[in-house]
Amino acid sequence: MYEGIVQDLIDELGRLPGVGPKSAQRIAFHIVQTQNFDVSRLARILLDVRDKVRFCQYCGNVAEEVTCHICADPDRDTTLICVVEEPKDVAAIERTHEYNGRYHVLGGAISPIDGIGPDQLNIRSLMPRLESGEVVEVIIATDPNLEGDATASYLSRLLVAMGVRVSRLASGLPVGGDLEYADEVTLGRAFAGRRIIGGE
Amino acid sequence: MYEGIVQDLIDELGRLPGVGPKSAQRIAFHIVQTQNFDVSRLARILLDVRDKVRFCQYCGNVAEEVTCHICADPDRDTTLICVVEEPKDVAAIERTHEYNGRYHVLGGAISPIDGIGPDQLNIRSLMPRLESGEVVEVIIATDPNLEGDATASYLSRLLVAMGVRVSRLASGLPVGGDLEYADEVTLGRAFAGRRIIGGE
Repeated sequence: MYEGIVQDLIDELGRLPGVGPKSAQRIAFHIVQTQNFDVSRLARILLDVRDKVRFCQYCGNVAEEVTCHICADPDRDTTLICVVEEPKDVAAIERTHEYNGRYHVLGGAISPIDGIGPDQLNIRSLMPRLESGEVVEVIIATDPNLEGDATASYLSRLLVAMGVRVSRLASGLPVGGDLEYADEVTLGRAFAGRRIIGGE
Repeated sequence: MYEGIVQDLIDELGRLPGVGPKSAQRIAFHIVQTQNFDVSRLARILLDVRDKVRFCQYCGNVAEEVTCHICADPDRDTTLICVVEEPKDVAAIERTHEYNGRYHVLGGAISPIDGIGPDQLNIRSLMPRLESGEVVEVIIATDPNLEGDATASYLSRLLVAMGVRVSRLASGLPVGGDLEYADEVTLGRAFAGRRIIGGE
């Protein structure tokens, strides 16, 4: 439909997740038509990412060195490991400023329907991290859905057998949410996980 | 939040139109984590676009040569010029296969609130195209909104004064749409533009 190279760009942008044909076209024309859009900067960063980004040898998070900045940070609490599915979950937890331990990034969750079992996940490298006995608690922070639940119960069985204390993030009503709009499963979990706040 | 280069990529993707921070993060991790995503291909295309894409000397459409493939095509009807706002409008009209004339791309529409007057648009280069007298009709296909209407009336005054026949795309109910969901303005225009289909 367009002259070759513009169509190539639209096609290539259309492969990105969440970018449909219309968005790809819009982005391509923005790149073509906007004078101050620095195309070479984006191109350079893409190549930099390909060349420089790797995965941390300890936790599997994205990193620019052999070790990510969290595993390399001596001020982090080495007695806690928080297990998450994806690097973006690390970023989400870091934004809370509630956690100062280290992470372990699985690279996904157990999902038999997608052919993802424990062997496809970054689980094996978690074991050596627990051998020294320094870690006192593993906090499982997989997504609160079917796959995340399956992964959490698989991991907890494995870790409890190794004598490690295992916890999971609380499930319940989102803060700022409206009780009447919570789905039944969430509301059910909020009941099951209720905490005594007074009385005997 | 992330290691330097990944955050750079997220920031850079976030400058693209329609890509918010969450989408930018999702795209960035897709690029980082998907083994078979060809980063260098996207980078190369971006640089190619910067180096090769230009605007057609006649119509202002995007082109890889001095003249775009439509203006260079001897089989197109040279007696018709369709005036559109953007290159993507050319593509949309081409997809209909209803039009075999040439185009003129304005690069936008008159919008005083955004500081865009006739001088900021690619209007001046339309005049030499009409001088030979070969063009018998100019079809104005600007968007059916306030800016497109303003541009259409500005152009039609200019062109009628030059003795050129000027038409505008019909406004009315979208095909396949539902009358009850049409907004009042569209429905009003559909009435105003109604065509006699029978009787005397």
